[in-house]
Amino acid sequence: MALLEQITGPQDLKKLSIPELESLALELREVIIDTVNRNGGHLASPLGVVELTIALHHVFDIGKDQLIWDVGHQCYAHKLLTGRRDRFDSLRKRGGISGYPKISESELDCFGTGHSSTSISAALGMAIARDQLNHHYHVIALIGDGAMTGGMAMEALSHAGHLGLNLLVILNDNEMCIARNTGALARYFNRLIMAGPYKRAKEDVGSFVKGMLGGRMTRTIQDLERSLKGFITKGALFQELGFNYIGPVDGHDLPLLIECLNAIKTMHGPILFHCRTEKGKGLKEAEEDPQKYHGIKPMTVKKIDCEGDALPAQFPPATLHIKTFTDVFAEALVEAARDNPRVVGITAAMPTGTGLSLLEKEFPERFFDVGICEQHAVTLAAGMARQGMRPVAAIYSTFLQRGYDQVIHDVCLQNLPVVFAIDRAGLVGEDSPTQNGTFDLSFLRAAPNLRILAPRDDVDTRLMLHWALRQNFPVAIRYARCSAPAIDAGGERNLPGGELLRNGANATYLALGPIAGTCLRAAELLEQEGISMGVADARCAKPLDHALLEQLVDRPIITVEENTLEGGFGSAVLEHFASRQQFNQLRLLRLGIPDAFCEQATRDEQLAMHGLDAAGLAHAARTFLTP
Amino acid sequence: MALLEQITGPQDLKKLSIPELESLALELREVIIDTVNRNGGHLASPLGVVELTIALHHVFDIGKDQLIWDVGHQCYAHKLLTGRRDRFDSLRKRGGISGYPKISESELDCFGTGHSSTSISAALGMAIARDQLNHHYHVIALIGDGAMTGGMAMEALSHAGHLGLNLLVILNDNEMCIARNTGALARYFNRLIMAGPYKRAKEDVGSFVKGMLGGRMTRTIQDLERSLKGFITKGALFQELGFNYIGPVDGHDLPLLIECLNAIKTMHGPILFHCRTEKGKGLKEAEEDPQKYHGIKPMTVKKIDCEGDALPAQFPPATLHIKTFTDVFAEALVEAARDNPRVVGITAAMPTGTGLSLLEKEFPERFFDVGICEQHAVTLAAGMARQGMRPVAAIYSTFLQRGYDQVIHDVCLQNLPVVFAIDRAGLVGEDSPTQNGTFDLSFLRAAPNLRILAPRDDVDTRLMLHWALRQNFPVAIRYARCSAPAIDAGGERNLPGGELLRNGANATYLALGPIAGTCLRAAELLEQEGISMGVADARCAKPLDHALLEQLVDRPIITVEENTLEGGFGSAVLEHFASRQQFNQLRLLRLGIPDAFCEQATRDEQLAMHGLDAAGLAHAARTFLTP
Repeated sequence: MALLEQITGPQDLKKLSIPELESLALELREVIIDTVNRNGGHLASPLGVVELTIALHHVFDIGKDQLIWDVGHQCYAHKLLTGRRDRFDSLRKRGGISGYPKISESELDCFGTGHSSTSISAALGMAIARDQLNHHYHVIALIGDGAMTGGMAMEALSHAGHLGLNLLVILNDNEMCIARNTGALARYFNRLIMAGPYKRAKEDVGSFVKGMLGGRMTRTIQDLERSLKGFITKGALFQELGFNYIGPVDGHDLPLLIECLNAIKTMHGPILFHCRTEKGKGLKEAEEDPQKYHGIKPMTVKKIDCEGDALPAQFPPATLHIKTFTDVFAEALVEAARDNPRVVGITAAMPTGTGLSLLEKEFPERFFDVGICEQHAVTLAAGMARQGMRPVAAIYSTFLQRGYDQVIHDVCLQNLPVVFAIDRAGLVGEDSPTQNGTFDLSFLRAAPNLRILAPRDDVDTRLMLHWALRQNFPVAIRYARCSAPAIDAGGERNLPGGELLRNGANATYLALGPIAGTCLRAAELLEQEGISMGVADARCAKPLDHALLEQLVDRPIITVEENTLEGGFGSAVLEHFASRQQFNQLRLLRLGIPDAFCEQATRDEQLAMHGLDAAGLAHAARTFLTP
Repeated sequence: MALLEQITGPQDLKKLSIPELESLALELREVIIDTVNRNGGHLASPLGVVELTIALHHVFDIGKDQLIWDVGHQCYAHKLLTGRRDRFDSLRKRGGISGYPKISESELDCFGTGHSSTSISAALGMAIARDQLNHHYHVIALIGDGAMTGGMAMEALSHAGHLGLNLLVILNDNEMCIARNTGALARYFNRLIMAGPYKRAKEDVGSFVKGMLGGRMTRTIQDLERSLKGFITKGALFQELGFNYIGPVDGHDLPLLIECLNAIKTMHGPILFHCRTEKGKGLKEAEEDPQKYHGIKPMTVKKIDCEGDALPAQFPPATLHIKTFTDVFAEALVEAARDNPRVVGITAAMPTGTGLSLLEKEFPERFFDVGICEQHAVTLAAGMARQGMRPVAAIYSTFLQRGYDQVIHDVCLQNLPVVFAIDRAGLVGEDSPTQNGTFDLSFLRAAPNLRILAPRDDVDTRLMLHWALRQNFPVAIRYARCSAPAIDAGGERNLPGGELLRNGANATYLALGPIAGTCLRAAELLEQEGISMGVADARCAKPLDHALLEQLVDRPIITVEENTLEGGFGSAVLEHFASRQQFNQLRLLRLGIPDAFCEQATRDEQLAMHGLDAAGLAHAARTFLTP
């Protein structure tokens, strides 16, 4: 770590020679692999952009120049080079370094990201602001090929091409993702690589750079186009959209990257710089030649992340054997697909994350990965449902926000039987505040015709999916990023009804989702203190089980949910009693996520921070019941 | 109407000769112009696709073949030809024919639309369902050039190109819209027209069709590509995305359209058929040569609609002079822009509808029309705000659903001072259930850091915009599609506080938005019956004015809002009192939009249907206060 230790900020990079920068890349990879090995996190993406990161900081003055990392999960080297090396071992821990760019963490994180395809829009907004305020700096968006297929990236490209402002978009194009990736656009990038001067680029760039820097310094786009001819041979799509296209070049060739970026720095108008990188670059070498990487531990998690979903920190082996809600859902979906040939699954670039890869394995022709295109995914499902299929759109809660209009306008308004399998609903732990799924109950409740279910355990996950696939209206099933326990109180499980899991004389926890299990534990704690708490599982947030609520109304009720308290499940319960003018007898407390973005920590820590662990729930009940 | 009267359904079209079909086009135009003249509605768009509509019904078997109208505001001729001629004079009236395709209205309306850019996704979903179920029919999406710039259209194109299924996308490309339209994609369409074989198409098509139909009947895409050479000369962008591109052709040339569609019908794979049409085609002739159109009345509204926002029915002249909320907002924005050079306005293809054209006129360089790209619009604003600008994103409530994720992820999470000017919040009248803005209070309340205001009148609209532009956090201002009254109770107007407009001993209406005025009228009605109602204007839905609520709590409260009751303003008030355990003294009734999509009618009718007119509010209070 001889070199990295000298880097207090990007300015220190500028003094280093090319061989030193190449050594620095090795050191960065070592720290990244080592840290992710311990803390979990993204691995393949950060390793893929180490050289790009070094080159950008070497050539530009990031901080003054604005660099926006699309999705942002690839920014670890950037963090290590911008004054956060000492704290990097706190990556993704509570109070620690975020796994994504975050403006509150550093001025050098110019714009926060987490979701895909936002970078060009944000960059264009910055470029407009720069020109309006007569400031002078560069604006750079670094975006992956997967993110580029998201509709809003195309919206932004088209607008940027129209305006013609100075703006650099770097397409970080890695074959691995393309191979998995769907969409003609992805195929297009692939063709560019096949046909492009990728191999020749290195020799050509010398004269290209000379042509750029020598001679006339006032260049119009027309001039550029002429002098770039031969180097820029492809990229018609981007050129049609008004961009000057440069590439593809080897994104791990540091001298080439630096030469290109230095040249691009002097150019005008919107530029698309196409770099080909390898996800996980260096990982194999690290494993095959640990000496070179100072003997870092072998990776505890071998899987290369390629879906924007971070690797977990090393699990204690025991917990590895408990199925997650995702696992249970995925198995149930395959069962349903076996029973009914009309059942199909749709994912927006998260086949593994949503578990749909299981469906793909058994029914490849009934599995649809649409790329990072949630809007399209939802309306595609609507079209399928309209023509007699039973589509299950499996989308993370936080990403369903992208398809919200389509849920209302295409599915619910037409009352089409689409099933939304909403994974990662609630707190997501270490990943980032951007990824928490703590709003869906509020925004989905507003949609007429939609039923909203939440399983508390494995059995319910199956039951709910099979039930949903038999209805003639849209159904959303939300479940958390955690293992699916077995919580069987022996009662009947009728849908869309709720279930009383435990009787209690003093008050009742009315829960939604797996937190019902936590309520049971809290009730046991309180029993030892002589407080008799009942526990009911609402199971369905919309419609509510009126009969169950009537059973509960004469004792204090504590609603418990993993969603914002603004308009969530507890509010639905409030609305229910308000409509019946049952206030005078009512004592009701709502527990859930407060009106703020929840910072990173483990999921358990996050739950505890919000009083949603057993101790917190017990404490809340104790306080509430004390007169 | 000799011909039109014989058409009971598309089958009757198939018997007509080309000259008869051309006469039919004339008759359709006449009915459309005449009906819109009386009922209001879209005019230019339906007139632009008359020939396309006839040709599609002549060639295809719509109903079995699935035709999806993007946005759908152009489908009037389709409705007239599919058994709805007799009821067409009820267009946009309560209980009448919808101005958009609606599956509940006719099986020939294959998929409901209203918002832009959904058609290709829905069509692809249908095509997948068709193939999975081994059915055989054609699927056709008809999409305008404006709608094509929306991100989800590109998502769908890319996916469709990847899958390679049989699917026809018709690009209905009208110069008028392009001229206004922004984005490099729009410019690209323009270039296609300039360079393309538009003029030559007519001569070429004969041999093209012969080549298609004669000879071998088994054709691969490769064969097609060869034989189409010369005819298909452009459209590289679509071809890169995996589509066979045909065009551009004159979309008003009926014989040409029929020939082309007949040929296309036999082709395989995804096809993009590029038609050039003229918005408002025939309108000028109708005005210049009224005899030809049987002397229809001169248009009462001259403006050509080109923003997807329908023309109103003929206004009584008096009401024309009352400013709408849009007018007041637009003026206030120009004032703000004069005061502060950092203020900029952003619209997503609705410059006139949002009033931003006023800003464009005075500060063209601070006006940004991004096209139908709400996602991009919101994140663009975030980027601008991050770099010191004061962006005002003016977006209709129903379309802000498209940018919901960006509101949360890019604006609120980073607490960036973007102002959202949310027009058409609440009921929108005749337009369509798809366009109602009755969900925003619910979905926006869930977003941390966001403040949500709603002006009741003109003064508040100004005050709120100017206030919002001075804050360092995001602010949403929602206002209705109606005239902005002056409702001054003489009190102080402090933001974000509310205001008590009228004292009342028996109970209080707690309103949000212009419905406060209706509450005042209801209070007057009740006064005559001896019921003393107070009226308070909350003004701010988030945060609530706690002091005001404390003032009201000892009497019954009736919350009144133009938003769904699921998680809306009334629920926020409930949550407030619930958090304070103030139930025992509380009597609260929530009035608003029930949990359903509101059907078309005039805005006044819609309000009355939901008991949100003065009589309805009075009735609700009377019933509520009767023990």
